[in-house]
Amino acid sequence: MSKRVKIGIVAPSSRLDPATAERVAKLAAERCPEAELHFHPQCHLSCGHFAGDDAARAAAFAAVANDPTFDALWFGRGGYGSARIAEAVLPKLTDTARRKAYLGYSDAGALLAALYAAGIPGLAHGPMPADIRRKGGEAAVARALDWLVRRAPEALEPSLAAGGKAAAFNLMTFSQLIGTPLEPDLAGHVLMLEEVDEHMYRIDRSLFHLTSHRPLRRLAGIKLGRCSAIPPNDPEFVLNEVEVVEHWCKVSGIPYLGRADIGHDPENKVVPFGAWRTGAP
Amino acid sequence: MSKRVKIGIVAPSSRLDPATAERVAKLAAERCPEAELHFHPQCHLSCGHFAGDDAARAAAFAAVANDPTFDALWFGRGGYGSARIAEAVLPKLTDTARRKAYLGYSDAGALLAALYAAGIPGLAHGPMPADIRRKGGEAAVARALDWLVRRAPEALEPSLAAGGKAAAFNLMTFSQLIGTPLEPDLAGHVLMLEEVDEHMYRIDRSLFHLTSHRPLRRLAGIKLGRCSAIPPNDPEFVLNEVEVVEHWCKVSGIPYLGRADIGHDPENKVVPFGAWRTGAP
Repeated sequence: MSKRVKIGIVAPSSRLDPATAERVAKLAAERCPEAELHFHPQCHLSCGHFAGDDAARAAAFAAVANDPTFDALWFGRGGYGSARIAEAVLPKLTDTARRKAYLGYSDAGALLAALYAAGIPGLAHGPMPADIRRKGGEAAVARALDWLVRRAPEALEPSLAAGGKAAAFNLMTFSQLIGTPLEPDLAGHVLMLEEVDEHMYRIDRSLFHLTSHRPLRRLAGIKLGRCSAIPPNDPEFVLNEVEVVEHWCKVSGIPYLGRADIGHDPENKVVPFGAWRTGAP
Repeated sequence: MSKRVKIGIVAPSSRLDPATAERVAKLAAERCPEAELHFHPQCHLSCGHFAGDDAARAAAFAAVANDPTFDALWFGRGGYGSARIAEAVLPKLTDTARRKAYLGYSDAGALLAALYAAGIPGLAHGPMPADIRRKGGEAAVARALDWLVRRAPEALEPSLAAGGKAAAFNLMTFSQLIGTPLEPDLAGHVLMLEEVDEHMYRIDRSLFHLTSHRPLRRLAGIKLGRCSAIPPNDPEFVLNEVEVVEHWCKVSGIPYLGRADIGHDPENKVVPFGAWRTGAP
């Protein structure tokens, strides 16, 4: 019998509804019986925009991160709220929090960034339980479980096979970490960026921001994930997202390395932070 | 007869249509005959989102800034595009560019920030020609002319009467300058912030960003301008913009100093950057 892998799910950003949690638990039982999922009750709290107030979200995150019986902390959902609690969470973390996998994306990037800046290993950008609500989203959730339970190589963003250090973020989420203590040192990394629901002029402005920030000029390069649900630009922006990132890479001297297989969609692959090392969890 | 004040209008961001320019010229002739307005032809160029390509916008800005016959450079309109050309414009500026008034807001803030970071005096946040298209916008344009022509004290944001150093920006525009060479040192300044067309969760995230950026913790304080046309938040954010800024000021230790009389509206007052000094232009 395979080793059980205990996964604690918290929601540092927006609320995860119980029905979504049940669908994910059912899928995990069917498709990945080694996974033992524990949805922390905080996932279902509600406080305005957030899954509970800042104190409740920070406490749940620290409780799961510091619990040695959990092998992994899985971000339940994005939305907004991780940045709000990151500076409060960090001092609460013990050495136990360093021996754990973390998986999430979108707004979760604010906490992943802060954890990476604090030198915590085991972080990855990838699907979350809430992705099950997308059309075809079961595949994304199954991919995340394959990663969390057995570090399945087929869950990985394909270009990672080339080796080197990487990190992945939502573009706007990362832009609004620049210059704060949450910003990690990404010198020598390939930075993969994806976006959703942003006008093209805002994608351009965010790329101005990133590529003009001098520490990021030490990146090994930028890879562009999918930019989906872009609202119409008035007037037409003319440049598309590839031309925009090519422009800013040319201006800044950061190599543009092509597309990345990440985005707000069921195809979203897993990107471990730092140098990817093979091996079981 | 009063001294003529020659004002050059350029559009480093989005295009200003000729009909709007004509309305502003007519208003100036009627209400402020000392003002001699020159709309640079670049204002009416079109290149996708922008009033001409980056080179054309940068060249027009530098031409007016470096022309000793102009007393003032007036940003024609916001939109997006100033940040794109700021680093190219700065090295083109001569000493002549230091002896001139500059007036604009919204996206123009990216260039105003860069000019302020470069030590150029005479900058102010305030109405632009395109404001004439707003209901009641003639008053905003007349206020800008009163400022440009005779530094009318009644054009000023009222709290400036208390003295000290100030600066004013659109919140999101400023957020996306943080950590770039365009970011000015605002230690000891009162920073006035206004916003338009941003969800409350984004206003919150931008204020997280600003107040978490350690150099801004040396601000004398933050004053909140108007946040207008806020799209509905789903779910309801609960906190309003005052509660949001109060939260982040409390977390960061930056004093919250109340409301500022600025915004994307006809009431938008003039905020000179730095310590306001009385006297004719």
